[in-house]
Amino acid sequence: MAGRTARRRITRICVDDPEVSQRADLLAAEEPLGIRIGGRAVSLTMRTPGDDVDLTAGFLFSEGIISSAQDIASIRICDGSQCDHDHEDDDAMGNVADVTLRPGLATELRRSFLTSSACGVCGKTSIAELRVPGRFRLDEDQLQVPAGVLAGLPDALRRAQRVFERTGGLHAAGLFSGAGELLAVREDVGRHNAVDKIVGWALRDGLLPLRGCLLLVSGRASFELVQKAVLAGVPVLAAVSAPSSLAAELAEDAGLTLAGFVRGGSMNVYAGAGRVIPAR
Amino acid sequence: MAGRTARRRITRICVDDPEVSQRADLLAAEEPLGIRIGGRAVSLTMRTPGDDVDLTAGFLFSEGIISSAQDIASIRICDGSQCDHDHEDDDAMGNVADVTLRPGLATELRRSFLTSSACGVCGKTSIAELRVPGRFRLDEDQLQVPAGVLAGLPDALRRAQRVFERTGGLHAAGLFSGAGELLAVREDVGRHNAVDKIVGWALRDGLLPLRGCLLLVSGRASFELVQKAVLAGVPVLAAVSAPSSLAAELAEDAGLTLAGFVRGGSMNVYAGAGRVIPAR
Repeated sequence: MAGRTARRRITRICVDDPEVSQRADLLAAEEPLGIRIGGRAVSLTMRTPGDDVDLTAGFLFSEGIISSAQDIASIRICDGSQCDHDHEDDDAMGNVADVTLRPGLATELRRSFLTSSACGVCGKTSIAELRVPGRFRLDEDQLQVPAGVLAGLPDALRRAQRVFERTGGLHAAGLFSGAGELLAVREDVGRHNAVDKIVGWALRDGLLPLRGCLLLVSGRASFELVQKAVLAGVPVLAAVSAPSSLAAELAEDAGLTLAGFVRGGSMNVYAGAGRVIPAR
Repeated sequence: MAGRTARRRITRICVDDPEVSQRADLLAAEEPLGIRIGGRAVSLTMRTPGDDVDLTAGFLFSEGIISSAQDIASIRICDGSQCDHDHEDDDAMGNVADVTLRPGLATELRRSFLTSSACGVCGKTSIAELRVPGRFRLDEDQLQVPAGVLAGLPDALRRAQRVFERTGGLHAAGLFSGAGELLAVREDVGRHNAVDKIVGWALRDGLLPLRGCLLLVSGRASFELVQKAVLAGVPVLAAVSAPSSLAAELAEDAGLTLAGFVRGGSMNVYAGAGRVIPAR
């Protein structure tokens, strides 16, 4: 487990400036936390490491699994291979929370939480282990996109967001051609749903893989969104706000171009900067 | 199923203006979509209704359950009680997606997706059916909070967000006393995690229910966040951005005060406006 931030080398591009700079940047850390009760996996959440005992206790409470602190015998944060050490503190390292409930409570768990006796993710921290295997290779996509085209996407998305216009609050995903032409826009209270709506539409229309296309999401870019872009075969994912550490790592690993903070004529490129042409 | 927006009567408060106005407002609709494959529940997602066939297809693809459109025999959107009608279109009404995969594929499903033969949520649309039962009654909380205190929370939260400061992108939740004193702040790539970290900390410290306290979240307020606030017994939830329709409905139902767009000295109160004292 790393800390709450991760350092990463990025490419900073301003559309009015042909000069491109490389710099170190800090990203919010994102890693999986698997929660096990009595050794059985009940949940996997992508989270920023830290306060993991609190997170686990809060999750159990919010899901109605426990109703007081007394329902918890212990919560141990570990790396999944061995959870038998005896400390319980928020500074423990690891991506697995091993929970023991008070005697008698465990059997009352709602059946739907006990998904499988093998977690499948607990203890896994590498990108390779978390990835859903896909069919399309992004590294073959020869798309070159001018930075000016990328910089213009957020305005185009916002203009097409009809529900946001009326409610002032909704996520969106937009699919664009490599030249910046809007192909589809979908809105949803969940950013992952907006992307799934785009991908599902493209799948049903026989458009996958989305070679030569650009996908823009409002707000942040998480591991999950990068995963969806990679699976759909889209070579460039742009986000209006920041990506997480794991989003940048997966993008690098999969050959996806990931741009963040695409706003006001500039952007940070976290992976695959070779596809972006700096000058207009 | 309603449309993509829902109309709601709100209370508009500006801290510099003792005049409070009632007005109609449009909220982004949020409702559950249960996905069933061959009659078995595989997923529940909170989403904005619309493009539900695409959303379902995109979800199945992103999760690696299908790899092409040909893997889908049919997707029918229905109300959960009867899914035997024969149309497949994105304008169908309902909160259940009934999926039939091509013969042979269904048995290859990863076991972890098949959580239970009874969905537990499919077909449920009312607040009462979706709610996790809680222990604390919010209607007994006599807190009165000046609008000026609420208006000051976002600046206090931002000042306390150490990781955001360094990365430019992270959600946060802050717990405050009724007088606006910061009690705890937690940051996470997931807003629900930030709230779970607050709730778990309070649970373990014996602070539940959080009577007389204020909870502030960065960004939007969803059904899930309102649910967490209600369960923790906090009487006021404030959000920097917009709430969803279901968030406002649950807040109303549970006696929670829900304020949104808390920024620039003004706010919209979507439920429980009686706890907010308009004048400074």
